[in-house]
Amino acid sequence: MKVKLASSYGFCFGVKRAIKIAEAYENSATMGPLIHNQDEINRLKNDFNVGLYQNLKEVKDDDTVIIRTHGIPKNDLKDLKAQKAKVINATCPFVTTPQQIVKKMSKEGYSILIFGDSSHPEVKGVKSYGEDQDDVHVIMEIDEIKNLNFKNSKIATVAQTTKKKEKYLEIVNHLILRNKEVRVFNTICDATFENQDAARDLSKEVDVMVVIGGKNSSNTKQLHSICKENCEDSYLIENHNEIENSWFEGKKLCGVTAGASTPDWIIQEVVNKIEKIN
Amino acid sequence: MKVKLASSYGFCFGVKRAIKIAEAYENSATMGPLIHNQDEINRLKNDFNVGLYQNLKEVKDDDTVIIRTHGIPKNDLKDLKAQKAKVINATCPFVTTPQQIVKKMSKEGYSILIFGDSSHPEVKGVKSYGEDQDDVHVIMEIDEIKNLNFKNSKIATVAQTTKKKEKYLEIVNHLILRNKEVRVFNTICDATFENQDAARDLSKEVDVMVVIGGKNSSNTKQLHSICKENCEDSYLIENHNEIENSWFEGKKLCGVTAGASTPDWIIQEVVNKIEKIN
Repeated sequence: MKVKLASSYGFCFGVKRAIKIAEAYENSATMGPLIHNQDEINRLKNDFNVGLYQNLKEVKDDDTVIIRTHGIPKNDLKDLKAQKAKVINATCPFVTTPQQIVKKMSKEGYSILIFGDSSHPEVKGVKSYGEDQDDVHVIMEIDEIKNLNFKNSKIATVAQTTKKKEKYLEIVNHLILRNKEVRVFNTICDATFENQDAARDLSKEVDVMVVIGGKNSSNTKQLHSICKENCEDSYLIENHNEIENSWFEGKKLCGVTAGASTPDWIIQEVVNKIEKIN
Repeated sequence: MKVKLASSYGFCFGVKRAIKIAEAYENSATMGPLIHNQDEINRLKNDFNVGLYQNLKEVKDDDTVIIRTHGIPKNDLKDLKAQKAKVINATCPFVTTPQQIVKKMSKEGYSILIFGDSSHPEVKGVKSYGEDQDDVHVIMEIDEIKNLNFKNSKIATVAQTTKKKEKYLEIVNHLILRNKEVRVFNTICDATFENQDAARDLSKEVDVMVVIGGKNSSNTKQLHSICKENCEDSYLIENHNEIENSWFEGKKLCGVTAGASTPDWIIQEVVNKIEKIN
Protein backbone atom coordinates (compact mmCIF):
# COMPACT_ATOMS: atom_id res chain seq x y z
CA MET A 1 0.00 0.00 0.00
CA LYS A 2 1.36 3.37 -0.94
CA VAL A 3 1.45 5.86 1.96
CA LYS A 4 1.60 9.65 1.86
CA LEU A 5 2.23 11.68 5.02
CA ALA A 6 0.53 15.05 5.58
CA SER A 7 2.84 18.00 4.92
CA SER A 8 2.53 18.86 8.62
CA TYR A 9 1.64 16.40 11.38
CA GLY A 10 2.37 15.39 14.98
CA PHE A 11 4.64 17.38 17.28
CA CYS A 12 5.01 21.11 16.85
CA PHE A 13 8.39 22.79 16.53
CA GLY A 14 8.67 23.50 20.28
CA VAL A 15 7.99 19.91 21.38
CA LYS A 16 10.37 18.42 18.78
CA ARG A 17 13.05 20.80 20.03
CA ALA A 18 12.40 19.93 23.71
CA ILE A 19 12.67 16.19 22.98
CA LYS A 20 15.97 16.68 21.19
CA ILE A 21 17.22 18.66 24.20
CA ALA A 22 16.07 15.90 26.60
CA GLU A 23 17.82 13.24 24.49
CA ALA A 24 21.00 15.31 24.66
CA TYR A 25 20.93 15.38 28.50
CA GLU A 26 21.00 11.77 29.70
CA ASN A 27 20.25 11.23 33.41
CA SER A 28 18.40 14.55 33.62
CA ALA A 29 14.81 15.14 34.77
CA THR A 30 12.04 17.27 33.29
CA MET A 31 10.08 19.65 35.50
CA GLY A 32 6.57 18.34 34.79
CA PRO A 33 5.80 15.93 31.91
CA LEU A 34 7.46 17.00 28.65
CA ILE A 35 4.46 15.90 26.59
CA HIS A 36 0.97 14.43 27.08
CA ASN A 37 2.05 11.00 25.84
CA GLN A 38 3.07 8.32 28.31
CA ASP A 39 4.77 6.15 25.64
CA GLU A 40 7.16 8.98 24.80
CA ILE A 41 7.87 9.75 28.46
CA ASN A 42 8.64 6.03 28.96
CA ARG A 43 10.94 6.02 25.94
CA LEU A 44 12.92 9.01 27.25
CA LYS A 45 13.17 7.26 30.64
CA ASN A 46 14.26 3.90 29.18
CA ASP A 47 16.60 5.12 26.44
CA PHE A 48 18.07 8.28 28.04
CA ASN A 49 17.21 7.91 31.73
CA VAL A 50 15.29 11.21 31.64
CA GLY A 51 13.23 11.34 34.84
CA LEU A 52 10.22 13.42 35.83
CA TYR A 53 9.78 15.85 38.72
CA GLN A 54 6.36 17.15 39.64
CA ASN A 55 7.56 20.06 41.79
CA LEU A 56 10.64 22.06 42.75
CA LYS A 57 11.05 20.37 46.13
CA GLU A 58 12.06 17.12 44.46
CA VAL A 59 15.10 18.75 42.86
CA LYS A 60 18.41 17.70 44.42
CA ASP A 61 21.84 19.35 44.20
CA ASP A 62 23.75 18.51 41.05
CA ASP A 63 20.58 17.42 39.24
CA THR A 64 20.12 18.47 35.63
CA VAL A 65 16.61 19.87 35.31
CA ILE A 66 14.89 20.49 31.98
CA ILE A 67 12.26 23.25 31.79
CA ARG A 68 9.55 22.06 29.41
CA THR A 69 8.10 23.93 26.40
CA HIS A 70 5.36 25.68 28.47
CA GLY A 71 8.00 27.45 30.58
CA ILE A 72 7.71 28.01 34.33
CA PRO A 73 6.97 31.06 36.51
CA LYS A 74 9.81 33.56 36.89
CA ASN A 75 10.30 32.93 40.61
CA ASP A 76 10.38 29.15 40.15
CA LEU A 77 13.14 29.61 37.59
CA LYS A 78 14.98 31.90 40.02
CA ASP A 79 14.64 29.35 42.84
CA LEU A 80 15.88 26.58 40.56
CA LYS A 81 18.89 28.62 39.52
CA ALA A 82 19.63 29.44 43.18
CA GLN A 83 19.95 25.73 43.86
CA LYS A 84 23.00 23.86 42.72
CA ALA A 85 20.97 22.10 40.01
CA LYS A 86 21.96 22.64 36.39
CA VAL A 87 19.02 24.21 34.56
CA ILE A 88 18.40 23.45 30.87
CA ASN A 89 15.73 25.71 29.49
CA ALA A 90 13.65 23.99 26.80
CA THR A 91 10.92 26.63 26.94
CA CYS A 92 9.57 27.02 23.40
CA PRO A 93 10.88 30.25 21.84
CA PHE A 94 7.25 31.05 20.94
CA VAL A 95 6.51 31.03 24.69
CA THR A 96 9.64 32.95 25.70
CA THR A 97 8.43 35.79 23.44
CA PRO A 98 5.21 36.60 25.37
CA GLN A 99 7.12 36.20 28.67
CA GLN A 100 9.60 38.88 27.56
CA ILE A 101 6.85 41.11 26.13
CA VAL A 102 4.95 41.05 29.44
CA LYS A 103 8.17 41.86 31.31
CA LYS A 104 9.07 44.80 29.05
CA MET A 105 5.57 46.27 28.65
CA SER A 106 4.83 46.08 32.32
CA LYS A 107 8.14 47.85 33.08
CA GLU A 108 7.11 50.57 30.61
CA GLY A 109 3.88 51.17 32.52
CA TYR A 110 1.36 49.27 30.43
CA SER A 111 -1.51 47.32 31.95
CA ILE A 112 -1.29 43.75 30.67
CA LEU A 113 -4.03 41.53 29.29
CA ILE A 114 -3.31 37.87 28.52
CA PHE A 115 -5.85 35.99 26.43
CA GLY A 116 -5.62 32.42 27.69
CA ASP A 117 -6.38 29.87 30.38
CA SER A 118 -5.17 31.15 33.76
CA SER A 119 -4.72 27.59 35.02
CA HIS A 120 -2.47 26.57 32.11
CA PRO A 121 1.27 26.35 32.92
CA GLU A 122 2.19 28.46 29.88
CA VAL A 123 -0.10 31.29 31.00
CA LYS A 124 1.03 31.04 34.63
CA GLY A 125 4.60 31.42 33.41
CA VAL A 126 3.86 34.35 31.08
CA LYS A 127 1.81 36.15 33.76
CA SER A 128 4.62 35.82 36.30
CA TYR A 129 6.79 38.17 34.24
CA GLY A 130 4.54 41.18 34.95
CA GLU A 131 6.02 43.77 37.34
CA ASP A 132 2.70 44.52 39.03
CA GLN A 133 0.81 41.23 39.33
CA ASP A 134 -2.42 43.10 40.18
CA ASP A 135 -2.29 44.73 36.76
CA VAL A 136 -1.71 41.57 34.72
CA HIS A 137 -5.12 40.22 33.77
CA VAL A 138 -6.01 36.87 32.22
CA ILE A 139 -9.28 36.13 30.43
CA MET A 140 -10.59 33.24 28.36
CA GLU A 141 -13.84 34.85 27.19
CA ILE A 142 -14.79 38.34 26.04
CA ASP A 143 -17.53 38.43 28.72
CA GLU A 144 -14.90 38.50 31.46
CA ILE A 145 -13.42 41.76 30.18
CA LYS A 146 -15.95 44.05 31.83
CA ASN A 147 -14.87 42.82 35.27
CA LEU A 148 -11.29 44.00 34.77
CA ASN A 149 -9.83 47.14 36.29
CA PHE A 150 -6.82 48.27 34.32
CA LYS A 151 -4.60 50.68 36.20
CA ASN A 152 -3.45 52.39 32.97
CA SER A 153 -5.10 53.64 29.78
CA LYS A 154 -2.26 52.03 27.83
CA ILE A 155 -2.82 48.30 27.44
CA ALA A 156 -0.47 45.66 26.06
CA THR A 157 -1.90 42.26 25.11
CA VAL A 158 -0.50 38.82 24.34
CA ALA A 159 -2.25 35.49 23.72
CA GLN A 160 -1.59 31.94 24.79
CA THR A 161 0.16 30.33 21.80
CA THR A 162 -2.61 27.77 21.15
CA LYS A 163 -5.59 30.14 21.20
CA LYS A 164 -7.86 30.99 18.28
CA LYS A 165 -7.09 34.22 16.45
CA GLU A 166 -10.74 35.16 15.91
CA LYS A 167 -11.42 35.23 19.66
CA TYR A 168 -8.24 37.22 20.28
CA LEU A 169 -9.34 39.86 17.75
CA GLU A 170 -12.74 40.12 19.47
CA ILE A 171 -11.03 40.92 22.78
CA VAL A 172 -8.52 43.28 21.16
CA ASN A 173 -11.29 45.20 19.36
CA HIS A 174 -13.11 45.69 22.64
CA LEU A 175 -9.93 47.15 24.13
CA ILE A 176 -9.22 49.45 21.16
CA LEU A 177 -12.66 51.06 21.40
CA ARG A 178 -12.16 51.84 25.09
CA ASN A 179 -8.50 52.74 25.48
CA LYS A 180 -6.16 55.36 24.07
CA GLU A 181 -3.43 52.89 23.15
CA VAL A 182 -3.52 49.14 22.70
CA ARG A 183 -0.29 47.38 21.88
CA VAL A 184 -1.21 44.09 20.29
CA PHE A 185 1.33 41.29 20.09
CA ASN A 186 0.22 38.38 17.96
CA THR A 187 1.79 35.51 19.89
CA ILE A 188 -0.56 32.83 18.58
CA CYS A 189 1.28 29.90 17.03
CA ASP A 190 0.11 28.43 13.74
CA ALA A 191 1.24 24.84 14.50
CA THR A 192 -2.22 23.44 15.38
CA PHE A 193 -3.78 25.02 12.33
CA GLU A 194 -0.95 23.87 10.07
CA ASN A 195 -1.66 20.21 10.99
CA GLN A 196 -5.37 20.78 10.35
CA ASP A 197 -4.82 22.48 6.99
CA ALA A 198 -2.41 19.74 5.89
CA ALA A 199 -4.88 16.98 6.95
CA ARG A 200 -7.64 18.71 4.99
CA ASP A 201 -5.51 18.91 1.85
CA LEU A 202 -4.24 15.33 2.06
CA SER A 203 -7.64 13.78 2.81
CA LYS A 204 -8.90 15.22 -0.47
CA GLU A 205 -6.38 13.29 -2.58
CA VAL A 206 -6.33 9.84 -0.94
CA ASP A 207 -8.63 6.75 -0.87
CA VAL A 208 -8.17 6.03 2.80
CA MET A 209 -6.88 8.11 5.69
CA VAL A 210 -5.31 7.03 8.99
CA VAL A 211 -5.16 9.51 11.88
CA ILE A 212 -2.84 8.58 14.76
CA GLY A 213 -3.36 9.96 18.26
CA GLY A 214 -5.09 9.57 21.63
CA LYS A 215 -8.77 8.60 21.35
CA ASN A 216 -9.46 11.25 24.02
CA SER A 217 -7.22 13.92 22.55
CA SER A 218 -9.38 16.79 21.34
CA ASN A 219 -6.89 17.89 18.70
CA THR A 220 -6.65 14.31 17.29
CA LYS A 221 -10.43 13.97 17.21
CA GLN A 222 -10.62 17.27 15.34
CA LEU A 223 -8.09 16.03 12.76
CA HIS A 224 -10.19 12.87 12.33
CA SER A 225 -13.37 14.85 11.82
CA ILE A 226 -11.69 17.12 9.24
CA CYS A 227 -10.45 14.04 7.33
CA LYS A 228 -13.88 12.37 7.37
CA GLU A 229 -15.37 15.43 5.67
CA ASN A 230 -13.24 14.71 2.60
CA CYS A 231 -12.49 11.01 2.85
CA GLU A 232 -15.22 8.73 4.19
CA ASP A 233 -12.75 5.93 4.96
CA SER A 234 -10.84 7.77 7.69
CA TYR A 235 -9.72 5.80 10.74
CA LEU A 236 -8.51 6.99 14.15
CA ILE A 237 -5.94 4.72 15.83
CA GLU A 238 -3.56 5.04 18.78
CA ASN A 239 -0.87 2.77 17.34
CA HIS A 240 -0.07 0.15 14.67
CA ASN A 241 -1.77 -2.71 16.59
CA GLU A 242 -5.20 -1.34 15.64
CA ILE A 243 -4.63 -1.41 11.88
CA GLU A 244 -7.02 -3.72 9.96
CA ASN A 245 -6.10 -5.05 6.51
CA SER A 246 -9.69 -4.76 5.27
CA TRP A 247 -9.47 -0.95 5.35
CA PHE A 248 -7.10 -0.98 2.39
CA GLU A 249 -8.90 -3.41 0.07
CA GLY A 250 -9.28 -1.85 -3.37
CA LYS A 251 -7.51 1.33 -2.25
CA LYS A 252 -4.54 2.89 -3.98
CA LEU A 253 -3.20 5.64 -1.71
CA CYS A 254 -3.34 5.93 2.10
CA GLY A 255 -2.89 9.30 3.79
CA VAL A 256 -1.41 9.47 7.28
CA THR A 257 -1.47 12.27 9.84
CA ALA A 258 -1.06 12.47 13.62
CA GLY A 259 -2.17 14.56 16.60
CA ALA A 260 0.13 17.05 18.31
CA SER A 261 1.16 14.61 21.08
CA THR A 262 2.01 11.65 18.85
CA PRO A 263 5.74 10.81 18.70
CA ASP A 264 7.39 10.20 15.35
CA TRP A 265 8.36 6.60 16.15
CA ILE A 266 4.69 5.63 16.71
CA ILE A 267 3.86 7.24 13.36
CA GLN A 268 6.76 5.42 11.71
CA GLU A 269 5.55 2.04 13.03
CA VAL A 270 2.12 2.74 11.52
CA VAL A 271 3.57 3.78 8.17
CA ASN A 272 5.84 0.71 8.03
CA LYS A 273 2.93 -1.64 8.71
CA ILE A 274 0.60 -0.04 6.13
CA GLU A 275 3.33 -0.06 3.48
CA LYS A 276 3.65 -3.86 3.91
CA ILE A 277 -0.05 -4.41 3.15
CA ASN A 278 -0.66 -5.50 -0.45
CA MET B 1 -43.42 77.50 21.11
CA LYS B 2 -41.25 75.62 23.60
CA VAL B 3 -37.79 74.73 22.26
CA LYS B 4 -35.38 72.05 23.45
CA LEU B 5 -31.81 71.91 22.18
CA ALA B 6 -30.06 68.59 21.61
CA SER B 7 -27.59 67.70 24.38
CA SER B 8 -24.83 67.97 21.75
CA TYR B 9 -25.01 70.01 18.53
CA GLY B 10 -23.05 72.26 16.18
CA PHE B 11 -19.33 72.89 16.52
CA CYS B 12 -17.07 70.31 18.06
CA PHE B 13 -14.69 71.12 20.90
CA GLY B 14 -11.77 71.85 18.55
CA VAL B 15 -13.66 74.34 16.37
CA LYS B 16 -15.16 76.16 19.37
CA ARG B 17 -11.67 76.47 20.81
CA ALA B 18 -10.21 77.75 17.51
CA ILE B 19 -12.90 80.41 17.19
CA LYS B 20 -12.24 81.62 20.75
CA ILE B 21 -8.55 81.83 19.89
CA ALA B 22 -9.31 83.81 16.70
CA GLU B 23 -11.53 86.21 18.63
CA ALA B 24 -8.68 86.76 21.08
CA TYR B 25 -6.27 87.76 18.29
CA GLU B 26 -7.77 90.77 16.50
CA ASN B 27 -6.10 91.75 13.21
CA SER B 28 -4.68 88.24 12.76
CA ALA B 29 -5.18 85.88 9.79
CA THR B 30 -6.00 82.19 9.66
CA MET B 31 -3.97 79.87 7.43
CA GLY B 32 -6.81 78.40 5.36
CA PRO B 33 -10.50 78.85 6.30
CA LEU B 34 -11.13 78.20 10.00
CA ILE B 35 -14.47 76.52 9.28
CA HIS B 36 -16.64 75.55 6.29
CA ASN B 37 -19.11 78.34 6.97
CA GLN B 38 -18.81 81.64 5.12
CA ASP B 39 -21.12 83.50 7.55
CA GLU B 40 -18.80 82.71 10.44
CA ILE B 41 -15.69 83.65 8.45
CA ASN B 42 -17.39 86.97 7.59
CA ARG B 43 -18.27 87.54 11.26
CA LEU B 44 -14.67 86.99 12.36
CA LYS B 45 -13.53 89.40 9.62
CA ASN B 46 -16.11 92.09 10.47
CA ASP B 47 -16.00 91.89 14.27
CA PHE B 48 -12.34 90.99 14.89
CA ASN B 49 -10.62 91.77 11.59
CA VAL B 50 -9.44 88.16 11.30
CA GLY B 51 -8.26 87.68 7.72
CA LEU B 52 -7.66 84.59 5.64
CA TYR B 53 -4.50 83.36 3.92
CA GLN B 54 -4.65 80.54 1.40
CA ASN B 55 -0.92 79.81 1.38
CA LEU B 56 2.34 80.54 3.18
CA LYS B 57 3.58 82.99 0.54
CA GLU B 58 0.92 85.50 1.55
CA VAL B 59 2.32 85.81 5.07
CA LYS B 60 4.09 89.07 5.79
CA ASP B 61 6.55 89.96 8.55
CA ASP B 62 4.90 90.86 11.85
CA ASP B 63 1.65 89.12 10.84
CA THR B 64 -0.14 87.04 13.44
CA VAL B 65 -1.05 83.74 11.80
CA ILE B 66 -3.51 81.26 13.27
CA ILE B 67 -3.06 77.57 12.45
CA ARG B 68 -6.53 76.05 12.12
CA THR B 69 -7.88 72.92 13.86
CA HIS B 70 -6.70 70.52 11.11
CA GLY B 71 -3.08 71.49 11.72
CA ILE B 72 -0.49 71.96 8.96
CA PRO B 73 2.49 69.91 7.74
CA LYS B 74 5.58 69.99 9.94
CA ASN B 75 7.74 71.82 7.40
CA ASP B 76 5.08 74.48 6.78
CA LEU B 77 5.00 75.15 10.51
CA LYS B 78 8.80 75.33 10.54
CA ASP B 79 8.80 77.78 7.61
CA LEU B 80 6.16 79.91 9.31
CA LYS B 81 8.15 80.02 12.52
CA ALA B 82 11.31 80.93 10.58
CA GLN B 83 9.53 84.04 9.31
CA LYS B 84 9.00 86.98 11.56
CA ALA B 85 5.28 86.21 11.77
CA LYS B 86 3.79 85.38 15.19
CA VAL B 87 2.31 81.88 15.04
CA ILE B 88 -0.76 80.99 17.10
CA ASN B 89 -1.40 77.28 16.99
CA ALA B 90 -5.12 76.46 17.14
CA THR B 91 -4.58 72.88 15.99
CA CYS B 92 -7.17 70.76 17.79
CA PRO B 93 -5.51 68.80 20.64
CA PHE B 94 -7.19 65.70 19.20
CA VAL B 95 -5.17 66.29 15.99
CA THR B 96 -1.92 67.18 17.78
CA THR B 97 -2.08 63.72 19.41
CA PRO B 98 -1.79 61.64 16.19
CA GLN B 99 0.89 64.08 14.91
CA GLN B 100 2.99 63.40 18.01
CA ILE B 101 2.28 59.65 17.91
CA VAL B 102 3.47 59.43 14.29
CA LYS B 103 6.61 61.39 15.19
CA LYS B 104 7.44 59.22 18.22
CA MET B 105 6.57 55.83 16.69
CA SER B 106 8.42 56.52 13.51
CA LYS B 107 11.50 57.56 15.55
CA GLU B 108 11.22 54.25 17.43
CA GLY B 109 11.37 52.30 14.17
CA TYR B 110 7.72 51.50 13.56
CA SER B 111 6.15 51.50 10.12
CA ILE B 112 3.17 53.86 10.20
CA LEU B 113 -0.33 53.34 8.85
CA ILE B 114 -2.81 56.22 8.88
CA PHE B 115 -6.46 55.40 8.26
CA GLY B 116 -7.85 58.47 6.53
CA ASP B 117 -8.09 60.59 3.40
CA SER B 118 -4.63 61.37 2.06
CA SER B 119 -5.88 64.60 0.46
CA HIS B 120 -7.35 65.94 3.73
CA PRO B 121 -5.31 68.70 5.45
CA GLU B 122 -5.48 66.89 8.80
CA VAL B 123 -4.00 63.71 7.30
CA LYS B 124 -1.37 65.62 5.34
CA GLY B 125 -0.30 67.26 8.59
CA VAL B 126 -0.24 64.01 10.59
CA LYS B 127 1.68 62.19 7.84
CA SER B 128 4.32 64.91 7.69
CA TYR B 129 5.50 64.00 11.21
CA GLY B 130 6.83 60.60 10.08
CA GLU B 131 10.65 60.35 10.00
CA ASP B 132 10.71 58.17 6.89
CA GLN B 133 7.96 59.45 4.56
CA ASP B 134 8.27 56.28 2.42
CA ASP B 135 7.18 54.22 5.41
CA VAL B 136 4.15 56.31 6.40
CA HIS B 137 1.17 54.85 4.56
CA VAL B 138 -2.32 56.28 4.22
CA ILE B 139 -5.38 54.24 3.26
CA MET B 140 -9.11 54.91 3.13
CA GLU B 141 -10.28 51.37 2.37
CA ILE B 142 -9.22 47.92 3.56
CA ASP B 143 -8.69 46.86 -0.07
CA GLU B 144 -5.75 49.24 -0.39
CA ILE B 145 -3.83 47.48 2.38
CA LYS B 146 -2.47 44.68 0.19
CA ASN B 147 -0.61 47.20 -1.95
CA LEU B 148 1.42 48.47 1.00
CA ASN B 149 5.04 47.56 1.67
CA PHE B 150 5.87 48.10 5.31
CA LYS B 151 9.58 48.29 6.02
CA ASN B 152 9.14 46.88 9.55
CA SER B 153 7.19 44.04 11.18
CA LYS B 154 6.22 46.46 13.93
CA ILE B 155 3.36 48.70 12.83
CA ALA B 156 1.85 51.71 14.59
CA THR B 157 -1.55 52.99 13.46
CA VAL B 158 -3.59 56.14 13.94
CA ALA B 159 -6.86 57.27 12.37
CA GLN B 160 -8.15 60.57 11.04
CA THR B 161 -10.27 61.99 13.88
CA THR B 162 -13.54 61.90 11.92
CA LYS B 163 -13.34 58.32 10.64
CA LYS B 164 -15.66 55.45 11.54
CA LYS B 165 -14.42 53.10 14.25
CA GLU B 166 -15.79 49.96 12.60
CA LYS B 167 -13.71 50.52 9.48
CA TYR B 168 -10.63 51.26 11.58
CA LEU B 169 -11.02 47.96 13.44
CA GLU B 170 -11.30 46.11 10.14
CA ILE B 171 -7.95 47.53 9.03
CA VAL B 172 -6.35 46.97 12.43
CA ASN B 173 -7.50 43.32 12.52
CA HIS B 174 -5.94 42.73 9.13
CA LEU B 175 -2.64 44.10 10.46
CA ILE B 176 -2.72 42.05 13.68
CA LEU B 177 -3.09 38.78 11.78
CA ARG B 178 -0.06 39.55 9.63
CA ASN B 179 2.41 41.34 11.91
CA LYS B 180 4.23 40.55 15.15
CA GLU B 181 3.29 43.80 16.84
CA VAL B 182 0.60 46.33 16.07
CA ARG B 183 0.41 49.42 18.21
CA VAL B 184 -3.10 50.78 17.88
CA PHE B 185 -3.86 54.35 18.85
CA ASN B 186 -7.55 55.14 18.90
CA THR B 187 -7.45 58.74 17.71
CA ILE B 188 -11.03 58.84 16.43
CA CYS B 189 -13.03 61.68 17.93
CA ASP B 190 -16.56 61.07 19.20
CA ALA B 191 -17.86 64.57 18.36
CA THR B 192 -19.70 63.67 15.12
CA PHE B 193 -21.32 60.66 16.74
CA GLU B 194 -22.26 62.61 19.86
CA ASN B 195 -24.29 65.07 17.74
CA GLN B 196 -25.96 62.13 15.95
CA ASP B 197 -26.77 60.28 19.17
CA ALA B 198 -28.18 63.44 20.76
CA ALA B 199 -30.31 64.19 17.65
CA ARG B 200 -31.67 60.63 17.72
CA ASP B 201 -32.63 60.90 21.39
CA LEU B 202 -34.20 64.35 21.09
CA SER B 203 -36.20 63.55 17.94
CA LYS B 204 -37.94 60.75 19.85
CA GLU B 205 -39.40 63.12 22.45
CA VAL B 206 -40.52 66.14 20.38
CA ASP B 207 -43.43 66.94 17.99
CA VAL B 208 -41.34 68.83 15.48
CA MET B 209 -37.62 68.97 14.82
CA VAL B 210 -35.52 71.70 13.20
CA VAL B 211 -32.04 70.84 11.92
CA ILE B 212 -29.80 73.83 11.09
CA GLY B 213 -26.92 73.52 8.64
CA GLY B 214 -25.77 73.70 5.04
CA LYS B 215 -28.15 72.02 2.59
CA ASN B 216 -25.08 70.47 0.94
CA SER B 217 -23.33 69.50 4.17
CA SER B 218 -23.22 65.71 4.42
CA ASN B 219 -23.12 65.72 8.22
CA THR B 220 -26.18 68.04 8.40
CA LYS B 221 -28.11 65.86 5.93
CA GLN B 222 -27.28 62.82 8.03
CA LEU B 223 -28.62 64.56 11.15
CA HIS B 224 -31.80 65.40 9.25
CA SER B 225 -32.26 61.82 8.09
CA ILE B 226 -31.74 60.48 11.65
CA CYS B 227 -34.36 62.93 12.96
CA LYS B 228 -36.88 61.97 10.26
CA GLU B 229 -36.68 58.35 11.35
CA ASN B 230 -38.18 59.30 14.71
CA CYS B 231 -40.04 62.53 14.00
CA GLU B 232 -41.80 62.86 10.64
CA ASP B 233 -42.01 66.65 10.95
CA SER B 234 -38.28 67.32 10.74
CA TYR B 235 -37.09 70.34 8.74
CA LEU B 236 -33.64 71.23 7.44
CA ILE B 237 -32.87 74.96 7.28
CA GLU B 238 -29.77 77.09 6.79
CA ASN B 239 -30.95 80.02 8.92
CA HIS B 240 -33.97 81.64 10.65
CA ASN B 241 -35.32 83.17 7.39
CA GLU B 242 -36.52 79.75 6.24
CA ILE B 243 -38.74 79.08 9.26
CA GLU B 244 -42.46 78.68 8.45
CA ASN B 245 -45.10 79.20 11.14
CA SER B 246 -47.27 76.40 9.78
CA TRP B 247 -44.71 73.78 10.92
CA PHE B 248 -45.59 74.43 14.56
CA GLU B 249 -49.40 74.38 14.36
CA GLY B 250 -50.78 72.02 16.99
CA LYS B 251 -47.27 71.16 18.21
CA LYS B 252 -46.07 71.40 21.79
CA LEU B 253 -42.32 70.91 21.80
CA CYS B 254 -39.76 71.72 19.09
CA GLY B 255 -36.34 70.07 19.08
CA VAL B 256 -33.35 71.90 17.60
CA THR B 257 -29.99 70.58 16.51
CA ALA B 258 -27.28 71.79 14.13
CA GLY B 259 -24.53 70.46 11.85
CA ALA B 260 -20.87 70.61 12.80
CA SER B 261 -20.20 73.81 10.80
CA THR B 262 -23.12 75.84 12.16
CA PRO B 263 -22.12 78.73 14.44
CA ASP B 264 -23.91 79.24 17.74
CA TRP B 265 -25.26 82.68 16.79
CA ILE B 266 -27.12 81.25 13.77
CA ILE B 267 -28.61 78.58 16.07
CA GLN B 268 -29.54 81.23 18.62
CA GLU B 269 -31.38 83.30 15.97
CA VAL B 270 -33.41 80.22 15.02
CA VAL B 271 -34.24 79.37 18.64
CA ASN B 272 -35.30 82.96 19.37
CA LYS B 273 -37.61 83.03 16.36
CA ILE B 274 -39.26 79.68 17.11
CA GLU B 275 -39.79 80.63 20.79
CA LYS B 276 -41.77 83.69 19.64
CA ILE B 277 -44.22 81.55 17.63
CA ASN B 278 -47.47 80.88 19.51
